[in-house]
Amino acid sequence: MTFETTVQPRYRDLDPMGHVNNAVYATYLEHARTAFFREAVGRDLADANVALASLSIEFRRSIDRLGEVTVELAVVDLGTTSATLSYDLRLDGETAATAESVQVALDDEGAPTPIPADVREAFERHPE
Amino acid sequence: MTFETTVQPRYRDLDPMGHVNNAVYATYLEHARTAFFREAVGRDLADANVALASLSIEFRRSIDRLGEVTVELAVVDLGTTSATLSYDLRLDGETAATAESVQVALDDEGAPTPIPADVREAFERHPE
Amino acid sequence: MTFETTVQPRYRDLDPMGHVNNAVYATYLEHARTAFFREAVGRDLADANVALASLSIEFRRSIDRLGEVTVELAVVDLGTTSATLSYDLRLDGETAATAESVQVALDDEGAPTPIPADVREAFERHPE
Amino acid sequence: MTFETTVQPRYRDLDPMGHVNNAVYATYLEHARTAFFREAVGRDLADANVALASLSIEFRRSIDRLGEVTVELAVVDLGTTSATLSYDLRLDGETAATAESVQVALDDEGAPTPIPADVREAFERHPE
Repeated sequence: MTFETTVQPRYRDLDPMGHVNNAVYATYLEHARTAFFREAVGRDLADANVALASLSIEFRRSIDRLGEVTVELAVVDLGTTSATLSYDLRLDGETAATAESVQVALDDEGAPTPIPADVREAFERHPE
Repeated sequence: MTFETTVQPRYRDLDPMGHVNNAVYATYLEHARTAFFREAVGRDLADANVALASLSIEFRRSIDRLGEVTVELAVVDLGTTSATLSYDLRLDGETAATAESVQVALDDEGAPTPIPADVREAFERHPE
Repeated sequence: MTFETTVQPRYRDLDPMGHVNNAVYATYLEHARTAFFREAVGRDLADANVALASLSIEFRRSIDRLGEVTVELAVVDLGTTSATLSYDLRLDGETAATAESVQVALDDEGAPTPIPADVREAFERHPE
Repeated sequence: MTFETTVQPRYRDLDPMGHVNNAVYATYLEHARTAFFREAVGRDLADANVALASLSIEFRRSIDRLGEVTVELAVVDLGTTSATLSYDLRLDGETAATAESVQVALDDEGAPTPIPADVREAFERHPE
């Protein structure tokens, strides 16, 4: 089952073309990731010792200020120390962007470490 | 009757101290102002030819990531070409900051001009 | 002697009107404050246990993407536990905004405490 | 010959972990792209009718507030209506992230159109 959350767009998100700026998409995805960790994993992402290894975004159509933005998130690959999340960012139900990110679990020295059992279980409950 | 709206805090709003950064308060206030114009005035603030002349914020307590942020807005002074708005920014119902802003109506050349009648009426319906 | 620093504007600072967004002015002022603490006080503002108590900005003219932005900063009032800074934010040498902020020194419990001697000395060297 | 530009990090770029937030990398890349268009192409990116089709970032190491950030940019693929740019984002000369973006030239109706000759020539002067 995928995870879905809502993002409230802000006037400040818009650029001179009147569209949500491309960097803000990364913030919307992070917002979804944070909500997923808090609600589905039961952890605060800031405290979870997880590093973002990569992020890729395909922009499909622009987002203007009106409308409702939602993000659907799924765990599409689950390795020993890392996991790949996929995202479908929608404006009023239509895809505005798709994205993927890779997260790596780190130990206290910053080296990759096996994903903790509770996080792994939450990830396994959210396949595509 | 004052106007009230809700702001969704984001992880990106937090600074290295784990608190919502001071500049983001200005964004929260702008978000409230935008909602007020759209919902109470029936205009898009970006199209309304209104300039922000001044902004002052009193920070009362810090906002961390948890909790609900609301902004209560009132028109505290209404002149011919300008108006003063006051704000009460709350975290879980307790004041985190108070603020005031002065807006000026502009004509197409950028000179102060009388506030349009429909805007004035909406302002008059939202005293402190 | 006042303190002066340069800010590099970014495309992301612009809003749908093509002007630097009002909240970004607060970021420019914070940038100047951070540079002042690092270069004139010899401390990292993030580690300095200083809270922002208030901030007020007078917007004089809009900033578009071209041009050089500088901030001139002075300590205009120096109390036992707090200090008032004033700012002149310029675009190509002409004032775009003036501002004032009040900072309070805090102890480890978050209560106001006397400004440390080294900070006070640096503040005294930068009157208006 | 690649294109290189400098980015001034801001305190506001940092997140609760004290590192430059991942979304801000996209802003740094956009800053480099804007400088490239202005200095190498002789056009304002905001007026150039260019859409960002995709963006991918590999995060290699975190950026803290100290140090100098530079971005080296090259045109690695040049098609009829689109071009791929690559980026090397460095902190004090060491790679902090690598990235790629695809830009598409649009006509006034928003449909892909051949890249204008002057833009193409500038792109051809900046291979990897």
